[in-house]
Amino acid sequence: MAVNLSPPDATHLHPVAGVELGVAMAGVKKPNRKDVLVMRLEPGATVAAVFTRNRFCAAPVVLAKKHLANGARAFVVNTGNANAGTGKDGLNRALDVCRALAAALECKAEQVIPFSTGVIMEPLPVDRIVAGLPAAVSDLKAGNWLSAAESIMTTDTVPKAVSRKVRLSGGDAVVTGIAKGAGMIRPDMATMLGFVATDAKVSRDKLRSMVRRAADRSFNCVTVDGDTSTNDAFILIATGKGPAASTKKDLSALEEAVTGVSRSLAHAIVRDGEGATKFVTVRVERGRSEAECRKVAYAIAHSPLVKTAFFASDPNLGRILAAIGNAGIGDLDAGKVDLFLDGVAVVKAGGRNPSYLEPQAFAVMKKPEFTVRAMLNRGRASATVWTCDLSFDYVRINAEYRT
Amino acid sequence: MAVNLSPPDATHLHPVAGVELGVAMAGVKKPNRKDVLVMRLEPGATVAAVFTRNRFCAAPVVLAKKHLANGARAFVVNTGNANAGTGKDGLNRALDVCRALAAALECKAEQVIPFSTGVIMEPLPVDRIVAGLPAAVSDLKAGNWLSAAESIMTTDTVPKAVSRKVRLSGGDAVVTGIAKGAGMIRPDMATMLGFVATDAKVSRDKLRSMVRRAADRSFNCVTVDGDTSTNDAFILIATGKGPAASTKKDLSALEEAVTGVSRSLAHAIVRDGEGATKFVTVRVERGRSEAECRKVAYAIAHSPLVKTAFFASDPNLGRILAAIGNAGIGDLDAGKVDLFLDGVAVVKAGGRNPSYLEPQAFAVMKKPEFTVRAMLNRGRASATVWTCDLSFDYVRINAEYRT
Repeated sequence: MAVNLSPPDATHLHPVAGVELGVAMAGVKKPNRKDVLVMRLEPGATVAAVFTRNRFCAAPVVLAKKHLANGARAFVVNTGNANAGTGKDGLNRALDVCRALAAALECKAEQVIPFSTGVIMEPLPVDRIVAGLPAAVSDLKAGNWLSAAESIMTTDTVPKAVSRKVRLSGGDAVVTGIAKGAGMIRPDMATMLGFVATDAKVSRDKLRSMVRRAADRSFNCVTVDGDTSTNDAFILIATGKGPAASTKKDLSALEEAVTGVSRSLAHAIVRDGEGATKFVTVRVERGRSEAECRKVAYAIAHSPLVKTAFFASDPNLGRILAAIGNAGIGDLDAGKVDLFLDGVAVVKAGGRNPSYLEPQAFAVMKKPEFTVRAMLNRGRASATVWTCDLSFDYVRINAEYRT
Repeated sequence: MAVNLSPPDATHLHPVAGVELGVAMAGVKKPNRKDVLVMRLEPGATVAAVFTRNRFCAAPVVLAKKHLANGARAFVVNTGNANAGTGKDGLNRALDVCRALAAALECKAEQVIPFSTGVIMEPLPVDRIVAGLPAAVSDLKAGNWLSAAESIMTTDTVPKAVSRKVRLSGGDAVVTGIAKGAGMIRPDMATMLGFVATDAKVSRDKLRSMVRRAADRSFNCVTVDGDTSTNDAFILIATGKGPAASTKKDLSALEEAVTGVSRSLAHAIVRDGEGATKFVTVRVERGRSEAECRKVAYAIAHSPLVKTAFFASDPNLGRILAAIGNAGIGDLDAGKVDLFLDGVAVVKAGGRNPSYLEPQAFAVMKKPEFTVRAMLNRGRASATVWTCDLSFDYVRINAEYRT
């Protein structure tokens, strides 16, 4: 059901020197599915991260932020349970998992970074996760990225992994990443879970600014349903086993590669959006600021009426105008707004373009991918957001999620 | 499909002296349905109104605001076409309708207040509407409130009309109102269309503050899908044919009655929400301000994940916590939040209440009406919002709306 999204080819996912991955079937929620992932980092790696700003952020998010200050040696991820809305008990349970993995890997519990995703407000089944750790640890290897992507899926229908190489002055560096997410997607700082690693050597300060900028240009530009998760996290790892990125040119090339991988992962999340049948690019141009363009783009991308019209391939495009009018731009002059669907000029100066014919828009909307372009004609800024439609299957998936 | 909502009994709708209503089948969009309403006011009536703040507000909204300054003598309402997103041509068409009705009623075009509701961005079929006016004018009578409620329905499945009497010092006054709306409902100043009339004599200034306060306590507290319409309007008419409301006590009694009628109409809109199977009251208590309580209540009421869980009667209540965490209250302490479903204490201090059992919440959610109550425990303010669930039928209705 995903829109133009195939499972990645494992042979195209470059291993990252200094990172090993291992998975297990721990039966966290359901038996016989990969649901625990362990990532081990060799000493000397630097890590930077951005996390959800949801005030109900999960227990593992609280711990992860704290532990990241101690130099990360391992990550542990479980699906099937978010360990969110679980109060102090949730923190203790997350710490128990860290302790168990630390014992197996001979590091400190404070060097283990925990992540959870799944149902909110249920107690984390620590015993089952801990019982699954030995299998995950004995599975650790550098070539396991696809298996790792599979192990973090929840309502995802396709595993999400992207890899590329980037030429730095000291040689080629590798950037490989995985992500999960299909619903509760309107990342604020990052998406549900994304892990991107490079073997380049990058200072922690540089890595920190890189992770923020990459998030702002990828995960922070997509939305499925406007709901920001309690467990969002986007992690960038630089193992330092490959060439150094310290010159301005190298850092910029690496950031471009990291952003590209992150954006492909973010697009994959939208393409695999719950019930999605369309992948829609919403571009707002000629606004006064990027912020106001983003506001308008999100107003379009979040409107249930616009999203059901996308689903129906129904050029009921007045709904897009209504969404623009609702975006909260108090002094917007509706009489200046133009609207395009791919190359079709639908609205000019706030009214229907006299030469516009509905079959033109219908032909665009029937396609699985198209672009909505709104011109505010009041400035020079622009912004792009990627989203999907709202279908029967979104309701079915979310009405049945726990059964 | 509406939730606990029956068509009103015409014999319970009190006529309002000084108001006559007439309807016609003009074939605006489809044949053989009431789609044009004319309301005639006797001289001396005062009128106050609140309108949508959507920047793409419709042509009739622009004209209505202007014409209301001239002393309203008649209203004309059409369904089937919103005359929004239609630019200058839309204004001319709305004015043509006003002119035609003014000629028939022997008043000025500037004394006719136009309203339209229906599809956005299509040219208003002025000829068909004007051709229908004579039938509507010859149908004018005081007892036509139910027929009027029927004539303004679009995706509504039940006509919405409410009436009551209120004791003033000079005798009983009547308050009768009608409304329409089922989708694109998240009123900002008012709902899609609401008309409430009283025979009481009220000064224009008093009526103006009354309409705002009544809107804030009724139409401005409901949401179906978070989309604010381009055509929202809420009109309050005082014909002055009955007892005067000039003392503080009388004004307060009248405002209470107007607010009560408006709230019943607003609730009817939610009960008839597109695809609705549940009527849910969202109450947020012990916040620092009413504004922050409303923000949290709307975050819950707008979350597609929460609304699909309502539809499924699935006590996946962590989704409510996630919505609270997303409400944009930067300094909210999640560890203080309590959550109740009717009388069931689900969450205490940010975590699952140890004595909570899921079947308790399931029993509440199976009911067609229940209350979600979130306690922020950081102040003394509160707010209430009424909403419905998100079902398969919402998608079906909005994917098929124009076919």
